[in-house]
Amino acid sequence: MRARSIWGWGFEDKLPDEAARRALGEQVAAMLGLASLDSLPAPRALPTAADLRVPEPRVAVPEELAAFATADLVARARHTYGKSYPDLVRGFRGDFSPAPDFVTTPRNEDEVAAILRWCEAERVAAIPFGGGTSVVGGVEAIAGHGQRGAVSIDMGAMDRVLEIDLTSRAARIQAGALGPSLEKQLAVHGLSLRHYPQSFEFSTLGGWIATRAGGHFATLYTHIDDLVESVRMVTPRGVFASRRLPSSGAGPSPDRLVLGSEGILGVVTEAWMRVVPRPKWRASASVFFDDFFAGANAARAIAQSGLYPANCRWLDAREALLNGVPSEGGAVLLLGFESADHPLDASIARAIALATESGGRCPSGAKLRHDDGRTSQGSQGSQGSQSAARGGDASSETWRRAFLDAPYLQSALVSLGVIADTFETACTWDRFEALHAAVTRAVNGAFARVSGGKGSLTCRFTHVYPDGPAPYFTFVASSREADPLAAWAEIKRAASDALAESGATITHHHAVGRTHRPWYDRERPELFAEALRGVKRALDPAAILNPGVLIDTVETGDFAHDP
Amino acid sequence: MRARSIWGWGFEDKLPDEAARRALGEQVAAMLGLASLDSLPAPRALPTAADLRVPEPRVAVPEELAAFATADLVARARHTYGKSYPDLVRGFRGDFSPAPDFVTTPRNEDEVAAILRWCEAERVAAIPFGGGTSVVGGVEAIAGHGQRGAVSIDMGAMDRVLEIDLTSRAARIQAGALGPSLEKQLAVHGLSLRHYPQSFEFSTLGGWIATRAGGHFATLYTHIDDLVESVRMVTPRGVFASRRLPSSGAGPSPDRLVLGSEGILGVVTEAWMRVVPRPKWRASASVFFDDFFAGANAARAIAQSGLYPANCRWLDAREALLNGVPSEGGAVLLLGFESADHPLDASIARAIALATESGGRCPSGAKLRHDDGRTSQGSQGSQGSQSAARGGDASSETWRRAFLDAPYLQSALVSLGVIADTFETACTWDRFEALHAAVTRAVNGAFARVSGGKGSLTCRFTHVYPDGPAPYFTFVASSREADPLAAWAEIKRAASDALAESGATITHHHAVGRTHRPWYDRERPELFAEALRGVKRALDPAAILNPGVLIDTVETGDFAHDP
Repeated sequence: MRARSIWGWGFEDKLPDEAARRALGEQVAAMLGLASLDSLPAPRALPTAADLRVPEPRVAVPEELAAFATADLVARARHTYGKSYPDLVRGFRGDFSPAPDFVTTPRNEDEVAAILRWCEAERVAAIPFGGGTSVVGGVEAIAGHGQRGAVSIDMGAMDRVLEIDLTSRAARIQAGALGPSLEKQLAVHGLSLRHYPQSFEFSTLGGWIATRAGGHFATLYTHIDDLVESVRMVTPRGVFASRRLPSSGAGPSPDRLVLGSEGILGVVTEAWMRVVPRPKWRASASVFFDDFFAGANAARAIAQSGLYPANCRWLDAREALLNGVPSEGGAVLLLGFESADHPLDASIARAIALATESGGRCPSGAKLRHDDGRTSQGSQGSQGSQSAARGGDASSETWRRAFLDAPYLQSALVSLGVIADTFETACTWDRFEALHAAVTRAVNGAFARVSGGKGSLTCRFTHVYPDGPAPYFTFVASSREADPLAAWAEIKRAASDALAESGATITHHHAVGRTHRPWYDRERPELFAEALRGVKRALDPAAILNPGVLIDTVETGDFAHDP
Repeated sequence: MRARSIWGWGFEDKLPDEAARRALGEQVAAMLGLASLDSLPAPRALPTAADLRVPEPRVAVPEELAAFATADLVARARHTYGKSYPDLVRGFRGDFSPAPDFVTTPRNEDEVAAILRWCEAERVAAIPFGGGTSVVGGVEAIAGHGQRGAVSIDMGAMDRVLEIDLTSRAARIQAGALGPSLEKQLAVHGLSLRHYPQSFEFSTLGGWIATRAGGHFATLYTHIDDLVESVRMVTPRGVFASRRLPSSGAGPSPDRLVLGSEGILGVVTEAWMRVVPRPKWRASASVFFDDFFAGANAARAIAQSGLYPANCRWLDAREALLNGVPSEGGAVLLLGFESADHPLDASIARAIALATESGGRCPSGAKLRHDDGRTSQGSQGSQGSQSAARGGDASSETWRRAFLDAPYLQSALVSLGVIADTFETACTWDRFEALHAAVTRAVNGAFARVSGGKGSLTCRFTHVYPDGPAPYFTFVASSREADPLAAWAEIKRAASDALAESGATITHHHAVGRTHRPWYDRERPELFAEALRGVKRALDPAAILNPGVLIDTVETGDFAHDP
């Protein structure tokens, strides 16, 4: 089995080596306008298993869980953090002080139930763990108020596609299946879930459901929510199982209570998911914009058109540059349609027309891929230039590669002492320009305070809705401070405050976890938190599950002490 | 103001007069294979205000609510029932025994809060009331365990469109706005909500949200859920208000807890709704099928194609006949696309091709309406015959008229002593044939027991999803029993049992209320009911709101007695 990094993103062999990291450092120094790489710390050696500092367990593996539990040091280290920037920094330092006391890997629902039973009896926190890619502290093994320890529940052993319904195009899939594994099992039947978050290779169905992950489709089926037909979740009070239905109007949706519950109500074990045949037709195009907001307006026109592109990704000039996507120096809108049923010529032509009406140029026109595998050029944009060398599908491909490899770069930057992170949101269209200005002002202000103004902030749209976009920001900054974590926290706080003050959400698809709690608490209705606490009391009365995530542990913990 | 019927559907002047009702009786007698109209009771005189039997109020209007409350007898009668078959029968008899003790009509959120405060202090049930078109006993003024009476909260005075955001295409609308009123207010801005439940003329935005109403679009935006951007609800513990967002991944969706809450958590007062410009292009077609399930398969192929028609309504042969929709004696699939942005030629052509591949005939081809108002014939179906006299748009128009007038017919049938009602569901595609067989068997069995086998059951699809349809059944039966309510209950029970046993939902868009409780209780996860009770305790600890709906009043009432 290909080795996974203990502290950083993904496969060990894909982490850039020292020479590559040095080259990356030079690029970053140039981008940030630093005099030279010397302004950055030299690449430090990557940590090895010998560097891990993991505390002694507070509780031991009990007899009844021994068949699927381990207190192995490396296993505990691997389940200490997610993959947020602070997680990477702490992992790189070898600091695994909040490690779980042991790690369980249940093979069925009975074993999940047994873990929860034991945790409840022993007053130990139970931390559901999918692929461990949380960027918001969602899988950190933190014990709650009055709890003796914390146990990680790794769902990786429950990773099968159990059943396929070809007629209804649905599949019953276990929660621990990683993206590539479930896609491989579905491909045997010519089907696909087509849910590709950036974490796709290392995240699980259960994790996607628990965190309302954002996927492949830029419109319509944007979140995993839209693909869930029914769900099973083991709670401390038994199994919560909804009925397979294409839709229902019978009371509030039970599934929607599970979606986004981030492990505080139970452990998702399986779900019936809506699947699709692989697309046969594709159409794509790149549209270039000199004016920053003209591209955003084009994205809005397309989001409101009813054309429903699979891809409608707007990148600002610097974001395009960073990802190697041709943009003629300005902003670029990457458009894509896909269908297993029909050609898309009319759709892409209309989308290009809308984009060029907003001031875009589409020099290469549409690139069409037909059901027989042939490719061709479709209609040219109204301001198209025949001489343009690149564009269309090439940009999309470039983008896709950069997209999946970006987390490796972040890990490499951590090893250089560079601060690099992303944050994302959603807002209504009327607020986007003001939001963008507020975020830019706030983050640049933080750069001035923590990195002598040497920082880069870029923006793209990951998803678009008729009533608003999901903007996604990337920042990179040098750290002159002794503690890059403090510098990062300053930038994160400034950005999050700006989102909150602009009426945007603290997360469109990265979840709340522990990191986003202060801003989530300002965003959600206070009475919704009361409602959620009521639900928590009903399903997890001892408050063992994921303390501190979404709602206060202390309160639920206190409740558990009541007679 | 045009007079509304106290006991029956809609406007008084639209209820068929005695001659029309006699003619209707003859049609029904023929349809049911009765020897003659004499087998049916003669049309009885419609009840008048003088016939109303309304009990004395148990509690009087208090001083603090007097400015917007009335104990007027007719007002109380009008707020006694919804418009279910049993409601119509009881109303026709003049039996308004479960009338609310008084009716409030709050003009703002403070007044709603005052009503809830008073109800909580006085141990009186509070029954939110939108347009009063519930067909599941959702607005019946039934006092809960230990409560002294019940008060209706009619939201009709809060009926304004308060704000428009043209950029994001959203509107802030008060919950008491009836369909025609909110559409008229939106039309000034060239916008429309395009949510047309059958009750459109007499139901409200707040009612739609509370009951997850099904609307105009056969695919994608099927429920009101999909059009809600944010919502405000006054609860006994304060205002529950979500943030305006196009989407979010921050915890479980607060809006989804309000959607379908059927008045047990609070009173919806307003919502930001996604609106659209009026369509400029339309395309429609009728496709005929000899084989019963071939048409259903065509609907499935189209639902799974990614074409997203606005209309994809499949009617069985008898359903088509009843509604006067041409079908060449078989089943018919009514297809429709609409767009404010682009022509739909390719979409309708592909939908017709899919339908004809499933064995359908489309003799008139597509009817296209262009943005300049011109109409034309589009591509012919592959098995089209030029000689067909009717079809296309005409069928859709016939359907639309019959659709909106159907509830008047039901009221007229009640006056003839005929049992007439509908029920609806949703299931995955793999289960539809078995479901249809089970429902047919069960309902025919009930016909044999209660009406000498003289009954008619028909089926159509109201909405279709990639993973399943929303079948809608209509039944008409003669009643030889002394009590048509008992006969109706027998049929309803048989049908609902068949739905439950077939793994379908007890309601796709008619809500649960009190009528569907036994089957809802079997359908929803038991732990979801526990969760909902937890929410109820948090938001309505005295359990004053809509006792008996969705979850047990006794339990929540008991909780309220605890210290």
